[in-house]
Amino acid sequence: MYQSETTIRVRYGETDQMGYVYYGYYATYYEVARVESLRQLGLTYKEIEAMGIIMPVLENKSKFLAPGRYDEQLRIVTTLREKPGVRIRFEYEIFNTVNELIHIGETLLVFVDRTTNKPCRPPLPMLQVLEPYFK
Amino acid sequence: MYQSETTIRVRYGETDQMGYVYYGYYATYYEVARVESLRQLGLTYKEIEAMGIIMPVLENKSKFLAPGRYDEQLRIVTTLREKPGVRIRFEYEIFNTVNELIHIGETLLVFVDRTTNKPCRPPLPMLQVLEPYFK
Amino acid sequence: MYQSETTIRVRYGETDQMGYVYYGYYATYYEVARVESLRQLGLTYKEIEAMGIIMPVLENKSKFLAPGRYDEQLRIVTTLREKPGVRIRFEYEIFNTVNELIHIGETLLVFVDRTTNKPCRPPLPMLQVLEPYFK
Amino acid sequence: MYQSETTIRVRYGETDQMGYVYYGYYATYYEVARVESLRQLGLTYKEIEAMGIIMPVLENKSKFLAPGRYDEQLRIVTTLREKPGVRIRFEYEIFNTVNELIHIGETLLVFVDRTTNKPCRPPLPMLQVLEPYFK
Repeated sequence: MYQSETTIRVRYGETDQMGYVYYGYYATYYEVARVESLRQLGLTYKEIEAMGIIMPVLENKSKFLAPGRYDEQLRIVTTLREKPGVRIRFEYEIFNTVNELIHIGETLLVFVDRTTNKPCRPPLPMLQVLEPYFK
Repeated sequence: MYQSETTIRVRYGETDQMGYVYYGYYATYYEVARVESLRQLGLTYKEIEAMGIIMPVLENKSKFLAPGRYDEQLRIVTTLREKPGVRIRFEYEIFNTVNELIHIGETLLVFVDRTTNKPCRPPLPMLQVLEPYFK
Repeated sequence: MYQSETTIRVRYGETDQMGYVYYGYYATYYEVARVESLRQLGLTYKEIEAMGIIMPVLENKSKFLAPGRYDEQLRIVTTLREKPGVRIRFEYEIFNTVNELIHIGETLLVFVDRTTNKPCRPPLPMLQVLEPYFK
Repeated sequence: MYQSETTIRVRYGETDQMGYVYYGYYATYYEVARVESLRQLGLTYKEIEAMGIIMPVLENKSKFLAPGRYDEQLRIVTTLREKPGVRIRFEYEIFNTVNELIHIGETLLVFVDRTTNKPCRPPLPMLQVLEPYFK
């Protein structure tokens, strides 16, 4: 298992007239969380794309337990529970500033070779940085 | 069961550098689809809020079968399978211009009374317009 | 001069906690307006990109006269005042449902050849459809 | 004059299929920049709203000198050149990772009293923190 943390400050444009974070923005928060999760391992999604691999999303699930609000610094705990194969699943738990769990999410992505447009194995550098966490 | 259709033209700003609709925008498409779904019954979400009821999202699920692309006119079929109680579940199927099913989603929302901030029954006008579909 | 009209329904996710359309979304409305403006001439921006030309934005200006609000059907009048050269300037006037002018904007874009990455003349089909308006 | 700096990492969802930051997102970057600019003075926009004052945007101007790209850590220099009255003008210069100036912008906002819905003076705490910079 690999787990990491990142924080995100809620922007004004991400709120809606209900006064909450608009529900569509959590997908963006997930994106930031998983990208930062990889960066903490020394790998960027930008580099993965430069290797000719893209990672489109196959599935996304969200549970909204309590609203996120403007200017809150949300803490996102990102978890890789299984070693990635052709697919990789990220799980997210989002906590607000009083450490209340306000949101749970998960995203399933697939590795796709840009040249063949077919699913493929994760790039070697990713397998290498993740290996210590899945023994 | 109540079913309706609406179309959405993919905007440039909704694409990402993969050349696909960014996965976070599907939640926005769902929002448009369910609002238009109600409007076709003669009811607007704006009116529901004016009655003192808001409808925050509790759960959201998405399956991405094929990418949406810039300028495509997507057709969204929205389904209410069960009569709403305190909660209401919308299901969505999104088809591209060649009538390929590219996306499946569902959203669970809750009716909340703005004054008490507590879950409540759907507003009467909504129950009335939906009644013929759930006999 | 070439002038056209399009309408846009304000989405919930486009509002912010002030209860207004978030100011960043007007750029998206402009994009829809100018794309529909071209479509009414029988030309799509998608086709222009397929011809190997992209149109990045050079300048953008906005005046916010009155707030846009959720679910309003905004009417956008788009104007091309001058015949496009290497650059093209779109002007926008946005009216709300009571026909109040709520917003004025303009965008200057440049035609760029994708292969050379250099500014270029507008594609011939665009010049042809615009010609009758600039005699 | 008051000047401050903040950085923003470009998110994937902020790119478009041109491979650049979508032009509409710069307004969001400005928002983050001016909010952080105030925070560095010990004041948050959230507190200003809690004092019953909102700050809608009146004018916005942008010059796009070079594209912003995915995952770049952009540096935004925010400048208040004049002491705010009923209105406040923020200027922004955005630099990419190789310290190239890629974008210039400015936003004019107005202070509005939430109860009267009329323009008003800046809140006293803001005048106090800004005073040393405008002698």
